[in-house]
Amino acid sequence: MSKAAETVYKDNKQTVKIQDEFWGRYIRLVQDTVIPYQYEALHDRVPEAEPSHAIANFEIAAGRKSGEFKGWVFQDSDVAKWLEAVGYSLSIKPDPELERRADEIIDLVGEAQLEDGYLNTYFIINGLDKRWTNLQDCHELYCAGHFIEAAVAYYEATGKDKLLNIMRRNIDHIDSVFGPEEGKIKGYDGHQEIELALVKLYRLTGEEKFLRLASFFIDERGQEPNFLRQEWEQRGRVTHWSGKTDRMDPAYNQAHLPVREQSVAVGHSVRAVYMYTAMADLAAITGDEALREACKRLWSNMTEKQMYVTGGIGSTHHGEAFTFDYDLPNDTVYAETCASIGLIFFAKRMLEMIPDAGYADIMERALYNNVLGSMAQDGKHYFYVNPLEVWPQACSCDPGKHHVKSERQGWFGCACCPPNVARLLTSLNQYIYTVHGDTLYTNLYIGSELNVKLGGTEVAVSQQSSYPWEGKVSLQLDPAASGEFGLALRVPSWSEGIEIKINGEVLESAERQQGYVIIRRVWNAGDVIEAEIPMEAHRVYAHPLLRADAQKTAIQRGPLVYCLESADNGEPLSSVTLDETAAFSETFDESLLGGAVVVESKGFRVDQQGWNGGLYNRVKAPVNEVKIKAVPYYLWGNRGSGEMRVWIAEGKA
Amino acid sequence: MSKAAETVYKDNKQTVKIQDEFWGRYIRLVQDTVIPYQYEALHDRVPEAEPSHAIANFEIAAGRKSGEFKGWVFQDSDVAKWLEAVGYSLSIKPDPELERRADEIIDLVGEAQLEDGYLNTYFIINGLDKRWTNLQDCHELYCAGHFIEAAVAYYEATGKDKLLNIMRRNIDHIDSVFGPEEGKIKGYDGHQEIELALVKLYRLTGEEKFLRLASFFIDERGQEPNFLRQEWEQRGRVTHWSGKTDRMDPAYNQAHLPVREQSVAVGHSVRAVYMYTAMADLAAITGDEALREACKRLWSNMTEKQMYVTGGIGSTHHGEAFTFDYDLPNDTVYAETCASIGLIFFAKRMLEMIPDAGYADIMERALYNNVLGSMAQDGKHYFYVNPLEVWPQACSCDPGKHHVKSERQGWFGCACCPPNVARLLTSLNQYIYTVHGDTLYTNLYIGSELNVKLGGTEVAVSQQSSYPWEGKVSLQLDPAASGEFGLALRVPSWSEGIEIKINGEVLESAERQQGYVIIRRVWNAGDVIEAEIPMEAHRVYAHPLLRADAQKTAIQRGPLVYCLESADNGEPLSSVTLDETAAFSETFDESLLGGAVVVESKGFRVDQQGWNGGLYNRVKAPVNEVKIKAVPYYLWGNRGSGEMRVWIAEGKA
Repeated sequence: MSKAAETVYKDNKQTVKIQDEFWGRYIRLVQDTVIPYQYEALHDRVPEAEPSHAIANFEIAAGRKSGEFKGWVFQDSDVAKWLEAVGYSLSIKPDPELERRADEIIDLVGEAQLEDGYLNTYFIINGLDKRWTNLQDCHELYCAGHFIEAAVAYYEATGKDKLLNIMRRNIDHIDSVFGPEEGKIKGYDGHQEIELALVKLYRLTGEEKFLRLASFFIDERGQEPNFLRQEWEQRGRVTHWSGKTDRMDPAYNQAHLPVREQSVAVGHSVRAVYMYTAMADLAAITGDEALREACKRLWSNMTEKQMYVTGGIGSTHHGEAFTFDYDLPNDTVYAETCASIGLIFFAKRMLEMIPDAGYADIMERALYNNVLGSMAQDGKHYFYVNPLEVWPQACSCDPGKHHVKSERQGWFGCACCPPNVARLLTSLNQYIYTVHGDTLYTNLYIGSELNVKLGGTEVAVSQQSSYPWEGKVSLQLDPAASGEFGLALRVPSWSEGIEIKINGEVLESAERQQGYVIIRRVWNAGDVIEAEIPMEAHRVYAHPLLRADAQKTAIQRGPLVYCLESADNGEPLSSVTLDETAAFSETFDESLLGGAVVVESKGFRVDQQGWNGGLYNRVKAPVNEVKIKAVPYYLWGNRGSGEMRVWIAEGKA
Repeated sequence: MSKAAETVYKDNKQTVKIQDEFWGRYIRLVQDTVIPYQYEALHDRVPEAEPSHAIANFEIAAGRKSGEFKGWVFQDSDVAKWLEAVGYSLSIKPDPELERRADEIIDLVGEAQLEDGYLNTYFIINGLDKRWTNLQDCHELYCAGHFIEAAVAYYEATGKDKLLNIMRRNIDHIDSVFGPEEGKIKGYDGHQEIELALVKLYRLTGEEKFLRLASFFIDERGQEPNFLRQEWEQRGRVTHWSGKTDRMDPAYNQAHLPVREQSVAVGHSVRAVYMYTAMADLAAITGDEALREACKRLWSNMTEKQMYVTGGIGSTHHGEAFTFDYDLPNDTVYAETCASIGLIFFAKRMLEMIPDAGYADIMERALYNNVLGSMAQDGKHYFYVNPLEVWPQACSCDPGKHHVKSERQGWFGCACCPPNVARLLTSLNQYIYTVHGDTLYTNLYIGSELNVKLGGTEVAVSQQSSYPWEGKVSLQLDPAASGEFGLALRVPSWSEGIEIKINGEVLESAERQQGYVIIRRVWNAGDVIEAEIPMEAHRVYAHPLLRADAQKTAIQRGPLVYCLESADNGEPLSSVTLDETAAFSETFDESLLGGAVVVESKGFRVDQQGWNGGLYNRVKAPVNEVKIKAVPYYLWGNRGSGEMRVWIAEGKA
């Protein structure tokens, strides 16, 4: 580990508590509704959802009851993600009953674990002879990774180390199976996850062996001879999923090249961002330049050529994958919720390594749009796919769009997204600030309380924010003793500027670095920094090579991308154009789904009554001037099934 | 059979010879290149194409050699379609060597036929115990249908009845297996085709049993209990294709409702139009009103709500099927060549039953665009899928568009389209005229010689046409003796009118009926009718509910739909808008792929150099005025792989 990186890491330790009207509501929703609902779902007690069987699998593996394994081969991970979310939740707010339930599940997990440390209900139930024989498909290390993350979160929240010890034994077993040494498997999981989890465990414990194992998995990936290909040949070129012959494409698992040689985001998008997250973690900790450069290249490709304006990534449902540069269709889109969550993980690691507000811009974009929009206002319904253009009838009648839903669904057969949302929102406090040297970087404007050591001084920071509806932010600094240190305020890329006052006085000039205003001075207890970030609604255009958005505009206001819904603008939305030059009016509508700023403007609508007939005609239908109403994207689909569009055609009178 | 229908049918018998510069070239291409090339392909002697194995299957079935059946279960039909095309070709131009080759193949087919009349190489080679057990998937009656069509065409061209007799024996066998009688299968083929073929055989022979069998298959379809569902249950709910459990959707095979109750085009599009063709045949012959009304409803739904402007139908590659009204995406499109050929079959039958030029309009649209465009100028490369918008990189890198190709391919693994094009073009003479009562209807403006009996008089008709580049048409009538009868000239729906001269004198007024100008008078030998149909390039707009084409226009000139190619307009084509009001200039470009009228106009192109950076930006790139060049759609993709668009965004200066 480089000395510099180690310092960064240790200084980064913060205690942040969110006190925010906007996010507080979502976090409470997760605590009061999502976590209890998911607990029921894991126990197959949600009548309207497909049975998860995840707890039942553990009960069978533990010998408490008999039965068959059911669900996906990675079903265990749902239990882990729930436990992780519980950990975060308990660190926000104690809840003895919830803790008791979690402890019970941890007991169950412990009972299911084998003597040698192995822990995976699919293979414990179906036969251990097959364990570690199909890393490509079977998610064994992936599930272990999620349990490691859960163990860390649960330990940090409760101080209880039972799950931690279960996972220590499990990793000892994994360490005995995988590694560069003679007789061990020189391989890695088809679905990256354990790598970033092992880094978390290393950070908690400081034990090098966890870091070494994470590095092994990352470094081994994509080396020749290709492990996944060899394994595939060994099992007769068949896939676990159908038992039939399948083609092999290591790029799907980001194993087509050694990770340090990768430049383009390819393959399954969640796997990709989980891997990039671990790569950034390792680059920060070890100071590995080549790894850091690979992270920067992959970040650039992904966010500058393959990301939806909502922060969605992975444009095709075929393999839930990236396709290629500028291929971002709005209607056949995938943009899986988990992928944007992984993008946020990656952004956080990049921010920890490099103080560049560009990473926070993307983090904010993904968080406030793709991820926030994936959950219904009731916390019980989710989008897995987050489209930018929806025609409900096409979702049901056009097989190429069957994966797109116009209304959020209950717990899924493959329930990765809901628990991922839950664990992200309950750990959102970890995403607001970073520290570099003696400077505190404010990446997200979310009301929060923070205690942090800056330039040798303990500082209590209190942020208040009227986000996302207004750009007013204030930070009160309370250093234990007056002292010099830096405060960096992110100037969002969507903003035209920022006005800052310190203790009521306008800050006339300040250093600007990589998207932050950096204020360095001697701070005294009670100093108040007020920032006003203009948040007017504006148009967004896409790169000319992004063919799907040509001649179209999106509307954004602050961090929020807006959309048109047929509930406000009638059907079909394709008939609506936005006047190319019309101004926007912005009003807070208290009655709209808990209150939201709506954006209105002038546009045109094709007059269908004026169409001359037939499917095709020489004469086009006339247009009428209409008022256009846009609502935040994250609220779409909460008013029944209807059309929705983020990208709106622009027209002239 | 109703008396009226019988009369119509008999009067319809015409002898037409095409003498046309435009189509003559394509017909010669089929004769000189396509038929010989396909002969080689059927014999697995085309190095660059996947082996067909179709002739080899017959050789194995006939016991001439040993080996396994290879290819699709319906591979036999490729041989049949080739023989049918050869029949048509020989009726145009004798070719002893070609006839010898065809006779040899017919000998081989006869050798493969079983004693009981059964003829299908898949089951003869793989085991007769399975014959007639999976009508849903296995295409046995479909293949028989194609051989019936071949037998009729070959007999009509050569007078040789060997194949006809083979198929008589085959039908006797089929008749012993299928029918309403006790002990017979009350079923029908998963892929309609034999129905229309049996009608052809009935028309040739006048034998009622063929008509009865065709009616049985049509009438039985969609009755409850559902045959396809019962059969599926009996075979354990598995599909032939994978041997695995599959869902059952009788709508895919248009067997969800009795045919007379169907109103919406659903399911596999080729199956649909083949069935509608037979329905129209039967309605015309039997005078069945309910069947006729069903044909009219299905025609309307298909052509007024589910057809591309190029005459393509079946918008999804999932099952090569229709989706639902107004769902016509341009880039994920299917629009299979065979489906448009089937649409032409159906249109011909409707025209024979009902003198409405609307049917001819659609026939012309499908013929000059989707079908003609499917074949390369060399006759050796074909499109199976006929897209209206192509981005070549998406065809290779976006799995949702893998079925779309940016360049025509050689003979396919599933080679239905090329032989279907061949048989259509060599029989194109059958699509030009219809006769109702004593009136000759001119449906296509294709240079041709016709002998027909009108109002009791034998009339020789000679049509000359400058189509598709100019709208000048002349017809010379030479009745054996002066006599009164009607001549109906179609006024194309794309035209703004028609000017007609008779023997040099302008026809001031004439009866207009259902899209035709009807001229009834006493005609004398040497009478000349000249028609001038304005053929200026114009814009076409799509119905406001056709979301994919909103804010866009297509260009059409005469029967030809135009497109932009990046070869003329640069990439990306999404950056190009056509000026909303700009005029078109039209020039014949002799150097363009054999000569074609190109359409030019004024438009705008996004200046990519002026883009401010990033994937998304507040400021849009400036646009520059540019010249836009459109070429006929049927010629697209003949100048290397590039972008293509039929629907072009419209903009204002």
